Amino acid sequence: MIEQSVRKADRIIIGIDPGTNVMGYGILGIYGKKPAMIAMGLIELSKIGDHYMRLARIYERVTMLVEQYCPDEMAIEAPFFGKNVQSMLKLGRAQGVAMAAALSRQVPITEYEPRKIKQAITGTGAASKEQVCEMLKRILNIPPENILPKLDATDALAAALCHFYESAKPISTKSASSWKDYIAKNPTKVKGL
Amino acid sequence: MIEQSVRKADRIIIGIDPGTNVMGYGILGIYGKKPAMIAMGLIELSKIGDHYMRLARIYERVTMLVEQYCPDEMAIEAPFFGKNVQSMLKLGRAQGVAMAAALSRQVPITEYEPRKIKQAITGTGAASKEQVCEMLKRILNIPPENILPKLDATDALAAALCHFYESAKPISTKSASSWKDYIAKNPTKVKGL
Repeated sequence: MIEQSVRKADRIIIGIDPGTNVMGYGILGIYGKKPAMIAMGLIELSKIGDHYMRLARIYERVTMLVEQYCPDEMAIEAPFFGKNVQSMLKLGRAQGVAMAAALSRQVPITEYEPRKIKQAITGTGAASKEQVCEMLKRILNIPPENILPKLDATDALAAALCHFYESAKPISTKSASSWKDYIAKNPTKVKGL
Repeated sequence: MIEQSVRKADRIIIGIDPGTNVMGYGILGIYGKKPAMIAMGLIELSKIGDHYMRLARIYERVTMLVEQYCPDEMAIEAPFFGKNVQSMLKLGRAQGVAMAAALSRQVPITEYEPRKIKQAITGTGAASKEQVCEMLKRILNIPPENILPKLDATDALAAALCHFYESAKPISTKSASSWKDYIAKNPTKVKGL
């Protein structure tokens, strides 16, 4: 695990990239309006043979992270498509136990599709993990020696940064689904009603 | 929720039938070698609009049940097939948060396919929910007024009873996968080695 930036953050976001073989996490601190990496790391699961022991490990480690860093929000990378029902059930369980660790401490969760995260960080939804990692290093000024060889950790940090960007957007572009919806959500911004 | 049998059980099994709209639970007490219902009930989720709030409710309620009844084991009804990837991901999350509540208290989990549970209770894997309910009433001597109109709770109790039957089976039929395995597991039972 890699740690830096121990000074007090105004807001802390934990990013999680859940998987059944390895789970990545990234802790992002917001200082004023500037994001910086606080920590990132991997929870290795592939050597644990028992399915329930893996789930228990995820729950235990995510609980520890939540207790250690007291995040204000959790951002989770959540693929929705392209897998079979068996692997989706397993992935759902892994996500479920990670979410339980946040929910039990009243940490609100937002999920993002991988494509959305790549888009937010690199400008293209088709970016490779390596490109996401490169952009993260530049945006967050992470020294090269602080990037872990495995990329699941940078994906998790990318989810946290994506959440920071999304939450910084004005409400109109964030959640209005139609003009009617925009007016309802932003009565003071619409003149002449 | 329905409760009876307050005297001390030798062993307590919590059965869970997880769903994203309603989650059933049943608490089975074993007194000597005799099973009896301690409680059963439903966790209603359909009125909760937010997906995370539903997961939080499942986690919170299952945690409360685990703390209240101190079960020795958890049995969970777990369908593996027949749904699309979207519903399996949601189901996996619901299972995951329920499992996290057990795993955080070191309660071991065993899962059973619906067909297996029906087979164990009624003798046929194709039994209806009503048939499972009828057999449960007879086996556990549950007064008719103690059966809830919704059947998810009886399914959960059935999962707990199925686990009791399965765990009471001799090791040879339960988990020996071959003659070699049987010998290894039952050295005292095999003569002439």
